[in-house]
Amino acid sequence: MTEEFVPDVVISRLPRYLQTLNQMAREGLHTVSSKMLAERLGITAAQIRKDLSCFGGFGKQGTGYSIYYLIEQLQKILNLDRIWRVAVVGAGDLGRALTHYQGFASRGIEIVLLFDIDPKIVGTKVGPIVVRHSESMEEDIREQGIKIAILTVPAEAAQSTADRLVKAGVEAILNYAPVTLILPDEVQVQHIDPVLHLQQMMYYLDDND
Amino acid sequence: MTEEFVPDVVISRLPRYLQTLNQMAREGLHTVSSKMLAERLGITAAQIRKDLSCFGGFGKQGTGYSIYYLIEQLQKILNLDRIWRVAVVGAGDLGRALTHYQGFASRGIEIVLLFDIDPKIVGTKVGPIVVRHSESMEEDIREQGIKIAILTVPAEAAQSTADRLVKAGVEAILNYAPVTLILPDEVQVQHIDPVLHLQQMMYYLDDND
Repeated sequence: MTEEFVPDVVISRLPRYLQTLNQMAREGLHTVSSKMLAERLGITAAQIRKDLSCFGGFGKQGTGYSIYYLIEQLQKILNLDRIWRVAVVGAGDLGRALTHYQGFASRGIEIVLLFDIDPKIVGTKVGPIVVRHSESMEEDIREQGIKIAILTVPAEAAQSTADRLVKAGVEAILNYAPVTLILPDEVQVQHIDPVLHLQQMMYYLDDND
Repeated sequence: MTEEFVPDVVISRLPRYLQTLNQMAREGLHTVSSKMLAERLGITAAQIRKDLSCFGGFGKQGTGYSIYYLIEQLQKILNLDRIWRVAVVGAGDLGRALTHYQGFASRGIEIVLLFDIDPKIVGTKVGPIVVRHSESMEEDIREQGIKIAILTVPAEAAQSTADRLVKAGVEAILNYAPVTLILPDEVQVQHIDPVLHLQQMMYYLDDND
């Protein structure tokens, strides 16, 4: 498979292709056309063909793609053919909900560390995981070679916590705090903020209520 | 302000502009150049100027934008100059965490309804909100004129629940279930799936661990 420079925006769509293909596989489908996939995803078939062509061809002209082959290839491209161990920082409602989340294990993600600074929370268990004090965060993360962290600390603590994570070797941060983190270019950052998604939809809502 | 057809991708960036401008205002700044804003957001200044020009001009050449004026205008464009009442469907860990979430009220979002089907959960309180049984969902949503719902039900219940919400008048759904919903074009849907964000970052991580 040829894999040269691929634009970030293409990479950003691959996990959704994979999710939809897995859903189709569960529905018992074996092959899929770019048109079918496009309808499910709400984007154009041309876009899907163009995105996939970044990685060489996956299908024969006119016969569609083999769903299982495409799933396997996308998993390889996205480095999902392994288990990724992840640290969660912030054991409030959201941090606990994420640590409990069933959808991680089935998709190759294992939460192995959970940190907080609240003495009432440190030492308690969330599922099988004991909440550790954030003061040992750098040491624990280095020791376990964790590269990915999920940040669910309050907004005002987000930047300093992220800085500490990066110093400890974390290369990718999923940030739930409602602030834009300023980090070295080589660190991957994604933000999840439900408010931003809601605001984006509000633009389209009727004004008559 | 001229406001004709604006591409979805432009709208999708406005909430992040607003978030960053609010952060700058809290830091005590009064004016901002597109270059400063671009650096914070990790996109180009040209992109920001082009996006904002969709709504007419906001700043004088060379003097930058007034942060407060820009915040006010973006809030108007996104219909944020009001309180939006929202229903949460699914009162598991995530639904409860969202209902507790402090970041909604400060940004004009009020969770007013919370539904579940689990008899152990129905009738309990999450903050000031009593969990209602989903069987009254359509009626409650119609009665209160709710247009926006957050879906935190299990994957297998997501599509049927979304269909019921749309029939009850919901026009925008923020979906946390890891499935792609198939809904009428006029319904706004946004997905939040931490796994997709994590997978997207894994592409960029070193293979040596």
